[in-house]
Amino acid sequence: MIVIIKRGATDAQAQEVVEKITAMGYGVNVSKGVERLIIGVLGVRENKEMLAAQLSGIACVERVVPVSKNYKLVSREGAQAGTIIKLPNGVEIGGTAVHVIAGPCTVEGREMLLRTAHAVKQSGATLLRGGAYKPSTSPYSFQGMGKEGLEILAAAREETGLPVITEVMDPRDVAMVETYADILQVGARNMQNFNLLKEVAKARKPIMLKRGLSATIEEWLLAAEYIFAGGNHDVMLCERGIRTFETATRNTLDLNAVPLLKQLTHLPVIVDPSHGTGRWELVSPMARAGLAAGADGLMIEVHPNPADALKDGFESLTFEKFAAMMDGARAVARAVGRPIASDVAATV
Amino acid sequence: MIVIIKRGATDAQAQEVVEKITAMGYGVNVSKGVERLIIGVLGVRENKEMLAAQLSGIACVERVVPVSKNYKLVSREGAQAGTIIKLPNGVEIGGTAVHVIAGPCTVEGREMLLRTAHAVKQSGATLLRGGAYKPSTSPYSFQGMGKEGLEILAAAREETGLPVITEVMDPRDVAMVETYADILQVGARNMQNFNLLKEVAKARKPIMLKRGLSATIEEWLLAAEYIFAGGNHDVMLCERGIRTFETATRNTLDLNAVPLLKQLTHLPVIVDPSHGTGRWELVSPMARAGLAAGADGLMIEVHPNPADALKDGFESLTFEKFAAMMDGARAVARAVGRPIASDVAATV
Amino acid sequence: MIVIIKRGATDAQAQEVVEKITAMGYGVNVSKGVERLIIGVLGVRENKEMLAAQLSGIACVERVVPVSKNYKLVSREGAQAGTIIKLPNGVEIGGTAVHVIAGPCTVEGREMLLRTAHAVKQSGATLLRGGAYKPSTSPYSFQGMGKEGLEILAAAREETGLPVITEVMDPRDVAMVETYADILQVGARNMQNFNLLKEVAKARKPIMLKRGLSATIEEWLLAAEYIFAGGNHDVMLCERGIRTFETATRNTLDLNAVPLLKQLTHLPVIVDPSHGTGRWELVSPMARAGLAAGADGLMIEVHPNPADALKDGFESLTFEKFAAMMDGARAVARAVGRPIASDVAATV
Amino acid sequence: MIVIIKRGATDAQAQEVVEKITAMGYGVNVSKGVERLIIGVLGVRENKEMLAAQLSGIACVERVVPVSKNYKLVSREGAQAGTIIKLPNGVEIGGTAVHVIAGPCTVEGREMLLRTAHAVKQSGATLLRGGAYKPSTSPYSFQGMGKEGLEILAAAREETGLPVITEVMDPRDVAMVETYADILQVGARNMQNFNLLKEVAKARKPIMLKRGLSATIEEWLLAAEYIFAGGNHDVMLCERGIRTFETATRNTLDLNAVPLLKQLTHLPVIVDPSHGTGRWELVSPMARAGLAAGADGLMIEVHPNPADALKDGFESLTFEKFAAMMDGARAVARAVGRPIASDVAATV
Repeated sequence: MIVIIKRGATDAQAQEVVEKITAMGYGVNVSKGVERLIIGVLGVRENKEMLAAQLSGIACVERVVPVSKNYKLVSREGAQAGTIIKLPNGVEIGGTAVHVIAGPCTVEGREMLLRTAHAVKQSGATLLRGGAYKPSTSPYSFQGMGKEGLEILAAAREETGLPVITEVMDPRDVAMVETYADILQVGARNMQNFNLLKEVAKARKPIMLKRGLSATIEEWLLAAEYIFAGGNHDVMLCERGIRTFETATRNTLDLNAVPLLKQLTHLPVIVDPSHGTGRWELVSPMARAGLAAGADGLMIEVHPNPADALKDGFESLTFEKFAAMMDGARAVARAVGRPIASDVAATV
Repeated sequence: MIVIIKRGATDAQAQEVVEKITAMGYGVNVSKGVERLIIGVLGVRENKEMLAAQLSGIACVERVVPVSKNYKLVSREGAQAGTIIKLPNGVEIGGTAVHVIAGPCTVEGREMLLRTAHAVKQSGATLLRGGAYKPSTSPYSFQGMGKEGLEILAAAREETGLPVITEVMDPRDVAMVETYADILQVGARNMQNFNLLKEVAKARKPIMLKRGLSATIEEWLLAAEYIFAGGNHDVMLCERGIRTFETATRNTLDLNAVPLLKQLTHLPVIVDPSHGTGRWELVSPMARAGLAAGADGLMIEVHPNPADALKDGFESLTFEKFAAMMDGARAVARAVGRPIASDVAATV
Repeated sequence: MIVIIKRGATDAQAQEVVEKITAMGYGVNVSKGVERLIIGVLGVRENKEMLAAQLSGIACVERVVPVSKNYKLVSREGAQAGTIIKLPNGVEIGGTAVHVIAGPCTVEGREMLLRTAHAVKQSGATLLRGGAYKPSTSPYSFQGMGKEGLEILAAAREETGLPVITEVMDPRDVAMVETYADILQVGARNMQNFNLLKEVAKARKPIMLKRGLSATIEEWLLAAEYIFAGGNHDVMLCERGIRTFETATRNTLDLNAVPLLKQLTHLPVIVDPSHGTGRWELVSPMARAGLAAGADGLMIEVHPNPADALKDGFESLTFEKFAAMMDGARAVARAVGRPIASDVAATV
Repeated sequence: MIVIIKRGATDAQAQEVVEKITAMGYGVNVSKGVERLIIGVLGVRENKEMLAAQLSGIACVERVVPVSKNYKLVSREGAQAGTIIKLPNGVEIGGTAVHVIAGPCTVEGREMLLRTAHAVKQSGATLLRGGAYKPSTSPYSFQGMGKEGLEILAAAREETGLPVITEVMDPRDVAMVETYADILQVGARNMQNFNLLKEVAKARKPIMLKRGLSATIEEWLLAAEYIFAGGNHDVMLCERGIRTFETATRNTLDLNAVPLLKQLTHLPVIVDPSHGTGRWELVSPMARAGLAAGADGLMIEVHPNPADALKDGFESLTFEKFAAMMDGARAVARAVGRPIASDVAATV
């Protein structure tokens, strides 16, 4: 059961609600987000209706929502409207328009990132991606440019106006990365790095939580619940392919997850066909498929010269191929009634 | 390496080519389809160019295609055009228009099948599906109506003009099922039932080969190769979901397979979002996603009253929901430049 | 619920029980094995105790066993003793002693099979394996020697006294293969070839049912139930590895399945570390592990010259390595209180 | 290629070797362990023999080992003897004797841990496990006692003499946990938490690296390489089950991995049948199987009262069942020539 407190309620009022609940013998999780405060009531097994009625009667309580799932705050139950994540520059993820996040796997230098940022913006991307801290399977592989990479990303935002998203891998880096990035990404390998989840829950920037390589939908939503319960309500999910027996593709993009998540949770869902396929020739059709399945956005790897990429070049699109991909995506997005954001702006 | 013999060549001429090849020490597989004869040359490891040149020079040889894959006849290598499967009533699978195959999982009776056939036709389906022989995990479950079910299917075709597709499970049944069905389906559990594959290779009806629950793309294409090599060149593939760790959906629909297959093979590819998700609420978005990914058709379970279905009711659409699904599919199909076949006919 | 009829009861008596059950509105499955007749009662949802009491009161009824599983006849519920499969030559699978089945993947000729048969017998194997009909992923691979292979197997039995086990792939071949083999094997790819299961259920020889590549334990037991329900009560299971994401081994040998099956079913369980690993260097340790986990037997690929094997040479042991493997297996078998059968005989 | 520096060589001498290598244009990774210094040479593609000869000629170089794997320092190539991890109290993991690590999933309190420690010691365990920081799928589940739990573990060591192993989840906690624990465990969900790996590489305590839920053997060894390359040479691996389609067991214990790892790496391998099966009834047979497969040790969950356990009670053994398990393990351990460590000591 979750209790949503009215905006404008004082901390003292909320505290009173918490005390009433604990006095009745239940546990609580208080999640204080930027916009509102939500109280998760834990351990409710019977007399749900009566409890809901009691709590609803309190003046500062906006709504009481019974939730049967293990994840409560991110659950769609209670007919919650979809979460819309608003970025300073007007980008809204989770609304009618869909967003395309594009850029290189890894920030390899200033010039390559700026060129890429301009190119993807011109083709219709509305956010820029780029890794400064890279999770590498081998200790001998390139581990990213680190802080210098973050500075280059910030410079690219300055020049293009595109908000930037970048991965954070270490709880000790969250506060610092947050000063550069507009969205923090938690990568697939860290989806159940619970201490990192608790740390990004304290960040005041939105989080993109990628699905773990073999994470079930429920585990994924519980990982999102960690962030939400920790006080950060701006969470979006990113399907990036799961690990199966099939070796012809790097991962198996699980698009079933997209409409299923839209039922189960109010969080926006992004699809990453670059990692989800691992082969650039499949990126464009699977980007279209992701939108047709109902995704709120796409995340696409683009590189000036994929053959020279330090990481994941095999799955990156050139500028030309990205432009062509956008044309296909545009048509499908319109067909499902969810235009690509840059087109909407363009027609204003 | 495969050698394509000219149409109109005599058997004696073809035999001469075979003898030349075997005299050189290679193996051969002669695949005599309805329209043309193809000779697979086995065991070629070196001097490929010289051999190709020699064989190309023979009068009755149309073309020699070097193939590096384990599957030869179904490979896209050699830039073969896509296979188009023509049914007597004008349905062409693999062309620009996409087809929707719809109907119940299982033929449960005459009345229910006829009602369903009329309903799906009205909403735009161009083929009718229905199981007469059912692979049931439990020996105590309904095993299908058998021959009576086939007769009902034939009656439905009579009434509606829709070609019918139905599963054959036993090599001993192929000749009989062929007299009723327009397309024979080899089910997922029989994808590597090689004796069944050899038997349907002798049928004069097209085959739909469903992907095995844990079959790799390569194994699937080699299973198709069995049918092709056995002399039946009208083969289409059907992605119906693979088995993964995820339990929130019955299977994981692997749409990556669709654009990948379009690269690897010239065979048409159908997507089955009903089995691929196992949940009716996901069927419509995943049908759209399948078309966006490049499928040549869809296969959808429809039942007059899913709650009463003898099998797989949970994944079946009602008539109303099927009609709604078709509207969504229509828009996406148009967006990717591949209209739904019934719309094309309708506009003529 | 299953009803076990006393040995010696007449068909008429059994028929009377069936009629009583159907008169009460339940379904029945009558499984008439060589030794006894068992009636499965289907559709019992309430009043189980009363029904059991009524049926127990009938003179020819030995025992009524309530079963909650989907598989009934093969279930361990009702505290049934383990099935012991008796072969004409005194081999008993499922008793205290464990058996080692050994031989080549494929019968490649008379001489190689006879040499192998003598060699494995000398090292302690008590059954001979060898494929005459081979399921090949590619249509261009060797498909087995067929009937000639069966004749060679029979000759090897003649010479060595070892009972032989060989695979049957086609329902049309069952009656014929049965005249040569002592045990019929249903392969992994045919585990859910239900028409084949129904056909081997009519055979009067024991069946070894290999686990499907991605079959759950429950599906596997339901496949065994098909054979049992069809009247063949001599069924043993063979764990041969499942398909997972791991590519360092050909399959993942699921030894968890062994103790789990010993809980769930009364059927004997064999472990095949050759297919289960796909690498000969792992066969010996995993054979030991299989016995330590509680297997009733092992199935091992042995070839006079693995490098020349037509199939699966990479996983075959030489005669010397097989002898060494047996030594290790012997020690572990003794440690778990289940000596290797050839040792027991030797010490008599 | 790796260059092993002689014990007793000075830092200046080692530095000279590094400079020679970099001067030739290669990368280096210097791994300074407690006992010796190893230099990984990166980027060697040709002229390997000549390079090896040159480096071997340097006075302080003990040996040059060519390595073809992506993981170098942990590779078995170069015929390295197995790593033996020595703990202060005389426990040696990786030698002839096998060790049993036992204890509760989670430290729930002083009294329960002490009771458990005494009980498992009495039955033959030589190390004590217990979680103070717990990775919980849900944010609302118990997250462990934290530092208090560590203090209780230290107290149990004091009382029983058993070295203790406990999980560390956060790079910020490593230095602190190290002051309490004898072995630090990196859990399955953190196997690719590369920043944690880099941090435990700086610890002066041995590390047990559990396999990730869907980690390939190669990824696992590369994760171990992170720790080794970072300067901590006391690494052991723990197979704890992988995620597959099978739901009858919590995980699929991949014992194939044990003999395979013994080929590929010189690191000790521990098997955890508690997590690997998720069912207490399967723990004992799979513990035996693990030893038969060649494991250097076992890790077993034991709880005074599994039904009341805060976590994973379903897979925990009672004291009595643990004692019985040890008897079975003892017999198999002897059969494979690797006695259980407590027996060896006992017989001294």
